[in-house]
Amino acid sequence: MLSSDTLGPTITFGEILVEIMATTPGHGFGQALDLRGPFASGAPAIFISQCARLGGQAGIVACVGDDDFGRLNTDRLRADGADVSAVSIHPTLPTGTAFVRYRPDKGRDFVFNIAHSAAGQIAMTDAARALVARAGHLHVMGSAFAIPHLWALLQEAIPVVKARGGSLSLDPNLRKELMTPDTAARLAQVVAQADLLLPSGSELQLAAGLPEASEAEAVAALLAVVPEIVLKRGDQGATLFTADTRIDQPAFAVTEVDPTGAGDCFGAAYLTARRLGLANPLQLAAAAGARNVTCLGPMEGAGTLADLTRFIAEKDPT
Amino acid sequence: MLSSDTLGPTITFGEILVEIMATTPGHGFGQALDLRGPFASGAPAIFISQCARLGGQAGIVACVGDDDFGRLNTDRLRADGADVSAVSIHPTLPTGTAFVRYRPDKGRDFVFNIAHSAAGQIAMTDAARALVARAGHLHVMGSAFAIPHLWALLQEAIPVVKARGGSLSLDPNLRKELMTPDTAARLAQVVAQADLLLPSGSELQLAAGLPEASEAEAVAALLAVVPEIVLKRGDQGATLFTADTRIDQPAFAVTEVDPTGAGDCFGAAYLTARRLGLANPLQLAAAAGARNVTCLGPMEGAGTLADLTRFIAEKDPT
Repeated sequence: MLSSDTLGPTITFGEILVEIMATTPGHGFGQALDLRGPFASGAPAIFISQCARLGGQAGIVACVGDDDFGRLNTDRLRADGADVSAVSIHPTLPTGTAFVRYRPDKGRDFVFNIAHSAAGQIAMTDAARALVARAGHLHVMGSAFAIPHLWALLQEAIPVVKARGGSLSLDPNLRKELMTPDTAARLAQVVAQADLLLPSGSELQLAAGLPEASEAEAVAALLAVVPEIVLKRGDQGATLFTADTRIDQPAFAVTEVDPTGAGDCFGAAYLTARRLGLANPLQLAAAAGARNVTCLGPMEGAGTLADLTRFIAEKDPT
Repeated sequence: MLSSDTLGPTITFGEILVEIMATTPGHGFGQALDLRGPFASGAPAIFISQCARLGGQAGIVACVGDDDFGRLNTDRLRADGADVSAVSIHPTLPTGTAFVRYRPDKGRDFVFNIAHSAAGQIAMTDAARALVARAGHLHVMGSAFAIPHLWALLQEAIPVVKARGGSLSLDPNLRKELMTPDTAARLAQVVAQADLLLPSGSELQLAAGLPEASEAEAVAALLAVVPEIVLKRGDQGATLFTADTRIDQPAFAVTEVDPTGAGDCFGAAYLTARRLGLANPLQLAAAAGARNVTCLGPMEGAGTLADLTRFIAEKDPT
């Protein structure tokens, strides 16, 4: 069962980056292009930004460089109201970067510097331990299962948060290519302890450990373990599954400017609405995801409760 | 004495980067900006590009990542006619990056990833040894004196090139903050063996080991050791000093778009013109520097002999 916001902040572990975007679609970065950036980014950071903007307590364990790109991110999260006390500043490594260019087919080309940037040095510092000790909820990104030192941090943090009555959510955003016996075992271990699952598309089957199963079969298998599942279907909406309910939420129709971060905003808004006891968490989540794709930049469209309420009223009053 | 181009290529060791430029002046990278890039960059790479475009044999010992930014650079240098056989490709580290923004006062703000990028992994590979073994000239960037592993490579390469009759040039581009007893000793050691010195402004005094000396005093001291000195004065032109000549070269008047790389193009054109036996090396060098500042991107304005001849004819036929 999800803990109330009053127990303590929603926290997560993971990469903080800047994103630099090509302003024209095409393939890769083989010649000089018009770019726009740096934008605050990193899936865990987007998640925490949206939690905080919606009014939830939120914090992140991360590492940035001692440079403008790191400061841009911490300034942003601090302004959102997030707790950045556990964001350490590496003295020599640069803040992580991701150059992104949309391909004409809507796929994306990247040039990353993450593993060998400050983002690769996330550690259980004293400040991180202190944040974990007061956390009310831990949100796990599945991508962490493929990064041994991140997995070690989660193994330390999960029991601490659970022991004080905190809850656990999982976004199983693990690419199939990263599924090894190790990552599958880690995934299963976190699924077994999760209070909320936030898969996108076929991550549902991945989380169930049933890659060939139908949606209904995977949901049934997971509901035997996890009390609450929200399946994100992108522009096809989302569905909440619990033991005794199914709620389908249509997507808001928007003009897509930049889809990056939509899933993270969706998940963060759903979780935060549930922890704060707000009305209609699923609709709020759909609004958060949709609003974010209307803005250039991975978390530029993350809205406050007032923003999302206005967005819902304008878009579709039903 | 400078060796002829027929002895073998001009080579150098150092960083290959991409540069990403803010298109508006201001301070730092604290928010999203319009940017242009990636541009092929790195002072040693600019130098080698200009050597090759002018028709000289040229090669570089460097290291890039296995990414679009590395390929952009090696494709560019290969297209220029440079030897990239000693550019190794690091399997995991990214290609170095430099974000640059001009300040309103003409200073520059940077966010670098060099030391911890592939550029920090330059090594004496078999391919590098083979390039050194056939080199006719070695150009040393003084910035290498502050980087222990680069200095070790130069210590190996200098005697090899010298032993086969090759020559040595030095651009003592060492910032004062990097002047330690170690770097000063390395600088003095290379000055003592140099056939050509290419200082900018007060680097002349630095190279002479006489920080308080006048220009004339520093030149006199250096000419006791180095047969040929070209002092680069930016938009004030340049002066060639030898034991029995002084030639002053005025600068070409141009509209400055991007000053980065001008000094490297100047030095490369001078050296290459001398090694190829072209007429009026100093004028060609001034044209190469001036032409490069008219183009956005650190080496986008590096010209061929035809480009520079046309540039000279158009700008100032005197």
